[in-house]
Amino acid sequence: MGNKIKKIAVMTSGGDSPGMNSAIRSVVRTCAYYRTECVGIYRGYQGMIEGDFITMTARSVNNIIHKGGTILKSARSKEFMTPEGRKKAYEHLKEHKIDGLVVIGGDGSFTGGVVFNNEYNFPVIGIPGTIDNDIYGTSHTLGYDTALNTAMEAIDKIRDTASSHNRLFFVEVMGRDAGFIALNAGVGAGAEEILIPEEDLGLERMLESLKKSKRSGKSSSIVVVAEGDKSGKNVYQLAEYVEENMPEYDVRVSVLGHMQRGGSPTCFDRVLASRMGVKAVELLIDGKSNLMVGLQNDKITTTDLDNAIKGQCDIDMELLRVSDIMTT
Amino acid sequence: MGNKIKKIAVMTSGGDSPGMNSAIRSVVRTCAYYRTECVGIYRGYQGMIEGDFITMTARSVNNIIHKGGTILKSARSKEFMTPEGRKKAYEHLKEHKIDGLVVIGGDGSFTGGVVFNNEYNFPVIGIPGTIDNDIYGTSHTLGYDTALNTAMEAIDKIRDTASSHNRLFFVEVMGRDAGFIALNAGVGAGAEEILIPEEDLGLERMLESLKKSKRSGKSSSIVVVAEGDKSGKNVYQLAEYVEENMPEYDVRVSVLGHMQRGGSPTCFDRVLASRMGVKAVELLIDGKSNLMVGLQNDKITTTDLDNAIKGQCDIDMELLRVSDIMTT
Amino acid sequence: MGNKIKKIAVMTSGGDSPGMNSAIRSVVRTCAYYRTECVGIYRGYQGMIEGDFITMTARSVNNIIHKGGTILKSARSKEFMTPEGRKKAYEHLKEHKIDGLVVIGGDGSFTGGVVFNNEYNFPVIGIPGTIDNDIYGTSHTLGYDTALNTAMEAIDKIRDTASSHNRLFFVEVMGRDAGFIALNAGVGAGAEEILIPEEDLGLERMLESLKKSKRSGKSSSIVVVAEGDKSGKNVYQLAEYVEENMPEYDVRVSVLGHMQRGGSPTCFDRVLASRMGVKAVELLIDGKSNLMVGLQNDKITTTDLDNAIKGQCDIDMELLRVSDIMTT
Amino acid sequence: MGNKIKKIAVMTSGGDSPGMNSAIRSVVRTCAYYRTECVGIYRGYQGMIEGDFITMTARSVNNIIHKGGTILKSARSKEFMTPEGRKKAYEHLKEHKIDGLVVIGGDGSFTGGVVFNNEYNFPVIGIPGTIDNDIYGTSHTLGYDTALNTAMEAIDKIRDTASSHNRLFFVEVMGRDAGFIALNAGVGAGAEEILIPEEDLGLERMLESLKKSKRSGKSSSIVVVAEGDKSGKNVYQLAEYVEENMPEYDVRVSVLGHMQRGGSPTCFDRVLASRMGVKAVELLIDGKSNLMVGLQNDKITTTDLDNAIKGQCDIDMELLRVSDIMTT
Repeated sequence: MGNKIKKIAVMTSGGDSPGMNSAIRSVVRTCAYYRTECVGIYRGYQGMIEGDFITMTARSVNNIIHKGGTILKSARSKEFMTPEGRKKAYEHLKEHKIDGLVVIGGDGSFTGGVVFNNEYNFPVIGIPGTIDNDIYGTSHTLGYDTALNTAMEAIDKIRDTASSHNRLFFVEVMGRDAGFIALNAGVGAGAEEILIPEEDLGLERMLESLKKSKRSGKSSSIVVVAEGDKSGKNVYQLAEYVEENMPEYDVRVSVLGHMQRGGSPTCFDRVLASRMGVKAVELLIDGKSNLMVGLQNDKITTTDLDNAIKGQCDIDMELLRVSDIMTT
Repeated sequence: MGNKIKKIAVMTSGGDSPGMNSAIRSVVRTCAYYRTECVGIYRGYQGMIEGDFITMTARSVNNIIHKGGTILKSARSKEFMTPEGRKKAYEHLKEHKIDGLVVIGGDGSFTGGVVFNNEYNFPVIGIPGTIDNDIYGTSHTLGYDTALNTAMEAIDKIRDTASSHNRLFFVEVMGRDAGFIALNAGVGAGAEEILIPEEDLGLERMLESLKKSKRSGKSSSIVVVAEGDKSGKNVYQLAEYVEENMPEYDVRVSVLGHMQRGGSPTCFDRVLASRMGVKAVELLIDGKSNLMVGLQNDKITTTDLDNAIKGQCDIDMELLRVSDIMTT
Repeated sequence: MGNKIKKIAVMTSGGDSPGMNSAIRSVVRTCAYYRTECVGIYRGYQGMIEGDFITMTARSVNNIIHKGGTILKSARSKEFMTPEGRKKAYEHLKEHKIDGLVVIGGDGSFTGGVVFNNEYNFPVIGIPGTIDNDIYGTSHTLGYDTALNTAMEAIDKIRDTASSHNRLFFVEVMGRDAGFIALNAGVGAGAEEILIPEEDLGLERMLESLKKSKRSGKSSSIVVVAEGDKSGKNVYQLAEYVEENMPEYDVRVSVLGHMQRGGSPTCFDRVLASRMGVKAVELLIDGKSNLMVGLQNDKITTTDLDNAIKGQCDIDMELLRVSDIMTT
Repeated sequence: MGNKIKKIAVMTSGGDSPGMNSAIRSVVRTCAYYRTECVGIYRGYQGMIEGDFITMTARSVNNIIHKGGTILKSARSKEFMTPEGRKKAYEHLKEHKIDGLVVIGGDGSFTGGVVFNNEYNFPVIGIPGTIDNDIYGTSHTLGYDTALNTAMEAIDKIRDTASSHNRLFFVEVMGRDAGFIALNAGVGAGAEEILIPEEDLGLERMLESLKKSKRSGKSSSIVVVAEGDKSGKNVYQLAEYVEENMPEYDVRVSVLGHMQRGGSPTCFDRVLASRMGVKAVELLIDGKSNLMVGLQNDKITTTDLDNAIKGQCDIDMELLRVSDIMTT
């Protein structure tokens, strides 16, 4: 290879997720292992435009594997959507003699990477970091397993008070346009009903199902609602609708919110991040670009960034069926 | 004593809180220790009116000390506010030959107990169970310590994402009309600002304080808001107000909600519940009534139920001062 | 099918693991869904021999999905290893008109199932429940993900005190003869060294590695040791050996022990248990036997029980390599 | 006051405990509030001897309130026990123009402070930081509440597996020569028996008690043993003794070990640390010395360091009685 990679930059971009620090650590340590220099870029593409860089050595990432958030901070950058912004970014990379970039983020961040690579032929590797699990080419995104457990544990707590008072709770969880968190955290928490964008249950059927649950002797219930649910009603309107139609229920709403983005990553997310970081650096060193590292069938694989962005990420229909059986 | 206590009833009433099960267990086991029979009443005063009773032995309460919620369920009863309702309740107690009652709940539940005692001269002992810590005559109510940790750990998670994105979060915590949870969880989570009903900071001063914090180099901030805050604005309006006046901040809101009522009780709450349950039963056996068991200066004490209901429960002004110093 | 399955028994056997209750719940609810009767057997094969059975309905398993341990209890049975024991067991099953059995346990439990099936042609389906992850035919056993997180979080805590005091800790984790827990929890916790049965590092190399780590400026270190490690020394002897050879280190030992078997299951384990329970019941209803339900490539699959017992379960060599890179 | 305090040093010494970082943060921020300079000393007295100092500003302690361990590290120093060692230490303090010292640690650390103060008339204030709660003059030491919860949660997990297998567990918890952790975590975890140094139960009585528990239908049991227990047998010998005398029990041992020293501090410990740090700095500024800050009757108080060292710290006998009643 003519152009051996000598200096790699790593950054986190878009919404943060647990495991991003573990991935940063892995990228930095893998660089150290291959005696490749490593630079951290603060605040994603915006920091790249502003030249907000920091040299990173193995010691820079001591004691961060277990930390939520991202020590490199994250941001969304409108300026990077302009050619002028990307030009500034490129100049900063050149100035620092950086010859490869690892972007930890979601599809918006990958799109930026693809455009940048097209314009400047600059090697870019993506690591999927988002709690929403909505990236094609990987069965798990970084932070997803942690967010599932955070959401589920919060619902466990809500269950305590719901069953003490024979109440019906509508609990909204995150997930953007996808129902992964809702479906898995819902099954894990033993929810009586789960509303996800991928399946339009219909308000009538939900009501029927809740009435059946009530008749079967259940005195409390949890309905988990994905934030992207397509029922046409938000979680408060859903609660109101049920309260009107089932006055026997005492209905409450809880929106779990941003706590789902934080917290110490689970073992799964830390290990996944470690594996992905190694692969990302090795791909750059091998002269590869425009790839996303992913997990498929428990193995680390790669997917074209283009496909990762455009691909459709399907929910497991078998799990929907399991959920139906569990709540019968 | 002419009327030796032979059978004691225990119930949970009003909003549930972690530690109620530990207290039920303690009451039941203490009864067993003193060879006094014990009966559990489901759903508080409403269950008393309906005669929804269950015999409890030491084995009935195996493996519940660590469980959130209440195995006896809880409820609010409008019917018990009527003389007819209380008459029915009294008849059920007599029918089951119960001669003493332990009520685990908050001031509303104690008021019911006092009225009932006045009418029927029926021995009643209260155990303060509420996450809000707003009961006079005890430094800690059951569930308060657990709720503090639940709220604080949620804020810790929010801090992860706040500092990754340089955001300002308004986090609403529970506490009814009192600021105990907000003040303590806020100090524990290192909040930049804490808004509680006991102190009217004024929107201007809050803004000033946030601006100062920004100037001092802090890029993210957490403002903890008690649900009973008296600023005249709810947490969403507060966020909007700050966003308008400090456009440099990216503001978000999180309402922690009912998860604060659930979860496995902390060691403090389990031990406190065990101590209070013993004392409650021993007071009844000693022929006492109309008292609330409390913790004062780390000792188990008693307070007249009347005083517990009417007394003013003050927030620790020294801690407010500590909070101010911490966020300077 | 001539012999339609009308009544299914479920039991837990061998060492308990988190998620067993979630699997029991799933089996019971799936039976209810298919209008098949369901019976729980206490204490595994021993309870089967003693006829310790209980009828289970959907309500029997309310509120257990999140509980550690097993409500059906578990045991090892020597009597079941004898033809007489198995005869008694068979007679109890016939007496209760049970025509299918779901065994949740490890390879010892499956061996019992295979022998029993051979003798009595009784339909048996296995669900792999053990924290050790040492079962062929599934990428994950029930309880493994939970145990990983329990071990890792304990090591996180040990790390706090290790780095405060510049100490070297040897931490022994469970896993029987396999290194799955040690390798994954070790990578997740950022351990400096991981000793597993599958790789004989040699004491010399471990020492070399620790010295290198010390030279590189690390002042504290964690060595994770699998209980089945083949170095010929137990964890205390290892510590002594290092202390003698590296007097500059202050060495401590921690054996995590049985807490790794308990605790509320993670979302992953609860969802996996729900999926496996559905499949197990559907296999019996479909007239299948002698199969273990497993997870392979994220899909629910089946493996002959014979193969599950005999098959070799390999550790992920890529992860070993990742571990080496992380600790360089 | 002639000698206004202008620069304060803070250090952590002896065994580390959760909350030490929260206390460091509080000392540093309180100094900032009073426009007093602040210096951190690494590794306690040893770092003082070696001049291992670091300037600390409010920003140095951002985002540490929730962290276990101590960012200033801790150590025990033999050299400080010699006049030569203390002389070196004093010279470093003078060289840096430090005029007051806050020592966060246990009685050994306070003894060092008293000796140092006697020799050099150097103002010293102590903050009690140890998980053992064995310091006179405070109802709670920093880290104690966290350690209680860590120990209790571990025992909760052990309970899961104990009751699945009808086993008897001996669980050793920390506490040096005191039974605070054992008694409170034991009561909190619902232990069947608690062995502490303050009460010599006698092996016979323990056996009797376990037999009674067995007869009453309990199939599993947890015995919590303080590391300083005075039965003359360690936890393994106790287990063996019971196994010999009660062959019907399947006995296991778990030593919780150093994980009890780590972990993120509870809300109680973080708030206590914040309050104590403020008080310690204010005492120095007020010209006070040789005092320990403590919590008594929920108020921040002071005690002569001499008394704190010599005073006897008694266990709550009422709680022992509660424990007996709970396990009857």
